[in-house]
Amino acid sequence: MTESRQTESAPPIGSVSTSRVEAFSDGVFAIATTLLILEITVPRVGEEGDLFAALFALWPSYVSYLVSFLTIGVMWINHHFLIGLFARVDRPLLFLNLGLLAVVAFIPFPTGVLAEYLVDGTTAQLYAATALYGVTMVLLTTMFLLLWLHVRRSGSILKSAEAAHPVAKRAIVFCVIAAAAYLAAIGIAAVVPVVSLVLFTAVAALFAVGRLARS
Amino acid sequence: MTESRQTESAPPIGSVSTSRVEAFSDGVFAIATTLLILEITVPRVGEEGDLFAALFALWPSYVSYLVSFLTIGVMWINHHFLIGLFARVDRPLLFLNLGLLAVVAFIPFPTGVLAEYLVDGTTAQLYAATALYGVTMVLLTTMFLLLWLHVRRSGSILKSAEAAHPVAKRAIVFCVIAAAAYLAAIGIAAVVPVVSLVLFTAVAALFAVGRLARS
Amino acid sequence: MTESRQTESAPPIGSVSTSRVEAFSDGVFAIATTLLILEITVPRVGEEGDLFAALFALWPSYVSYLVSFLTIGVMWINHHFLIGLFARVDRPLLFLNLGLLAVVAFIPFPTGVLAEYLVDGTTAQLYAATALYGVTMVLLTTMFLLLWLHVRRSGSILKSAEAAHPVAKRAIVFCVIAAAAYLAAIGIAAVVPVVSLVLFTAVAALFAVGRLARS
Amino acid sequence: MTESRQTESAPPIGSVSTSRVEAFSDGVFAIATTLLILEITVPRVGEEGDLFAALFALWPSYVSYLVSFLTIGVMWINHHFLIGLFARVDRPLLFLNLGLLAVVAFIPFPTGVLAEYLVDGTTAQLYAATALYGVTMVLLTTMFLLLWLHVRRSGSILKSAEAAHPVAKRAIVFCVIAAAAYLAAIGIAAVVPVVSLVLFTAVAALFAVGRLARS
Repeated sequence: MTESRQTESAPPIGSVSTSRVEAFSDGVFAIATTLLILEITVPRVGEEGDLFAALFALWPSYVSYLVSFLTIGVMWINHHFLIGLFARVDRPLLFLNLGLLAVVAFIPFPTGVLAEYLVDGTTAQLYAATALYGVTMVLLTTMFLLLWLHVRRSGSILKSAEAAHPVAKRAIVFCVIAAAAYLAAIGIAAVVPVVSLVLFTAVAALFAVGRLARS
Repeated sequence: MTESRQTESAPPIGSVSTSRVEAFSDGVFAIATTLLILEITVPRVGEEGDLFAALFALWPSYVSYLVSFLTIGVMWINHHFLIGLFARVDRPLLFLNLGLLAVVAFIPFPTGVLAEYLVDGTTAQLYAATALYGVTMVLLTTMFLLLWLHVRRSGSILKSAEAAHPVAKRAIVFCVIAAAAYLAAIGIAAVVPVVSLVLFTAVAALFAVGRLARS
Repeated sequence: MTESRQTESAPPIGSVSTSRVEAFSDGVFAIATTLLILEITVPRVGEEGDLFAALFALWPSYVSYLVSFLTIGVMWINHHFLIGLFARVDRPLLFLNLGLLAVVAFIPFPTGVLAEYLVDGTTAQLYAATALYGVTMVLLTTMFLLLWLHVRRSGSILKSAEAAHPVAKRAIVFCVIAAAAYLAAIGIAAVVPVVSLVLFTAVAALFAVGRLARS
Repeated sequence: MTESRQTESAPPIGSVSTSRVEAFSDGVFAIATTLLILEITVPRVGEEGDLFAALFALWPSYVSYLVSFLTIGVMWINHHFLIGLFARVDRPLLFLNLGLLAVVAFIPFPTGVLAEYLVDGTTAQLYAATALYGVTMVLLTTMFLLLWLHVRRSGSILKSAEAAHPVAKRAIVFCVIAAAAYLAAIGIAAVVPVVSLVLFTAVAALFAVGRLARS
């Protein structure tokens, strides 16, 4: 027991602590959510313009903002859960985590595209915007899937392999279902874009509820 | 006592520590305040333009920046106070907190709208801008209200229910008053927009002083 | 001694720990420095434009970026030094700190104005830009002055009043000198703007060296 | 032993802890990566425009985003490794670190320039963009080189000079090679820009693999 505590207070040179990975990741998550607001620009309506109407007309931006904020927020909760299973961080985990963060930090862009074309766009444009959002979500789910697969492969760097492995199994099944749902949503978007938007929100809600059922 | 300390050093798998919720929230608060400056763009006055005049003409932006910065700052203090009452974090708290942060990160937008129309806008435009700001503040107060109601519902996850409940009771009363004041300010804005701006600042000041009286 | 340690692990309800003030402040400092780059926009030179020349022509932006980055960096070091003197945080300190951060987060704006008019601006425009930068620096120094005066007024919340007070005395003298130098620089800017820019850099360097002499 | 622990819990007034340097640095790294997305703006294709084509046409932006994100990510890992060697932070380290962060926070700008001219630019423009990116990377490598040289000069503030010095020696060799490769890439860019882009990615990959070989 004394030995394991000593390892904790004096980690081998070159190792990265989980707490610093969390700090860096928290930063990226927090900034990605906060940058979403920059996609909504102040409307300039001219001298006699109707600002009320202009602000109301921005509702697709508000909806996109909220969906993306809550999606990133739910992902942050899941991310914390996952990193919390590890006692130490190895190199594959570091790079998988970087890949995940690269997708998270990308989210403000498809959110902005979606907000731009949600109401005024043609059906083809809305399809393109929805597909971009869907592809980003598939990438996000895939990165989570790879991270959970890494949990299963990892032995000694987990806090408790017995506790982590059944959780990982359920999470992997869930990620595959979510990725399939996002792919289906991209397909549906070609016909009825609005339905796939509902599906995006539903999957995010499922991510939240799925966690709830476990604890 | 030993058992409770052990729980702290080895939390059940899947729980989110208050310290990480604070880190994420601190990030969002810090970024939201800092992004406010992006709403003030460098004036381009042309070759013979009067830059002094152009910089002075931006005073509504400076005022909006300062009011929003201090408002978010006071909210950060109150947020820290509230989270500090919890020994652990449960799922409703996580989602209520996400909702609160979504409103906080939204504040740069109404701030930018207000700065844009504070001086040059027509009365109708200033009303729209003030109403948007007011609605955002009502949402912010509502999220705080829900969080404080959660403090009252929570038992075992509080550090000390006896100490927290009377504080929560006062905070709930205060949030209701603040929400009412913001709603009144929106109404007043339809007649005299400037008065409601003073009210916004006054409520923020009350939030600060209200805390003072307690400690 | 045991009592003081107990106070640290279980602070009275409603108090804000120095570590969380540091975390929030670190966030604002880090973001303010990083946002500086957003003031430098990608030049679009058209189909046959000379991108090399366009990138070289941006040198005032690079210089402004570097000066502001290092200034905020030095202020971050000084800020850490100051907060480190406190064992606890009281309400005046919280609000003085918020005021300081409001000035820090404002710095990207005068930096952008300075970069815009440093080369192409008329003398009057350069004066205005320099004066705005100088006024911001005077405000920054004033907030530091108020914080150091608070150190002197504070007794029980300091880690060691005996160690802190002589440091505060020197810091106050230094802040007054720096504020005077910045005010002088604003005056000089009316005649020879470039000289005052050198003065800005010199004062920042003095802030850095001044610390060195002490430790 | 007891004395060294006491030093850790009560550092001399005026010292900056490694943990706070890490927190500030983590903030800058996290923000610099996240700001990269702001360089990709939502395409506005007009009423009948082909949004799919417009989104595909942005592929140079996606590639630049990913290369820069992973480069900054790898640098963050290396930075953490380096700071982790220090038990305390001295003034030269603070300022070298600030210089490094100034380069890191600058990266979104050359990334944006590269994305802008990667496909549509003339050969001369692409050369200019590539050279700017290369020069930034040379600066980054130089700052790392200076930091590693500081590790070698440092004695008492290292956790373990015996463990750190051989690592520093290898790192210095590696930084010199990387700087040379970046300089070569700038030269090659004058002839075949695309080859130098591959070189940029290769050096970043080497930074990652170089670490792997060590642990």
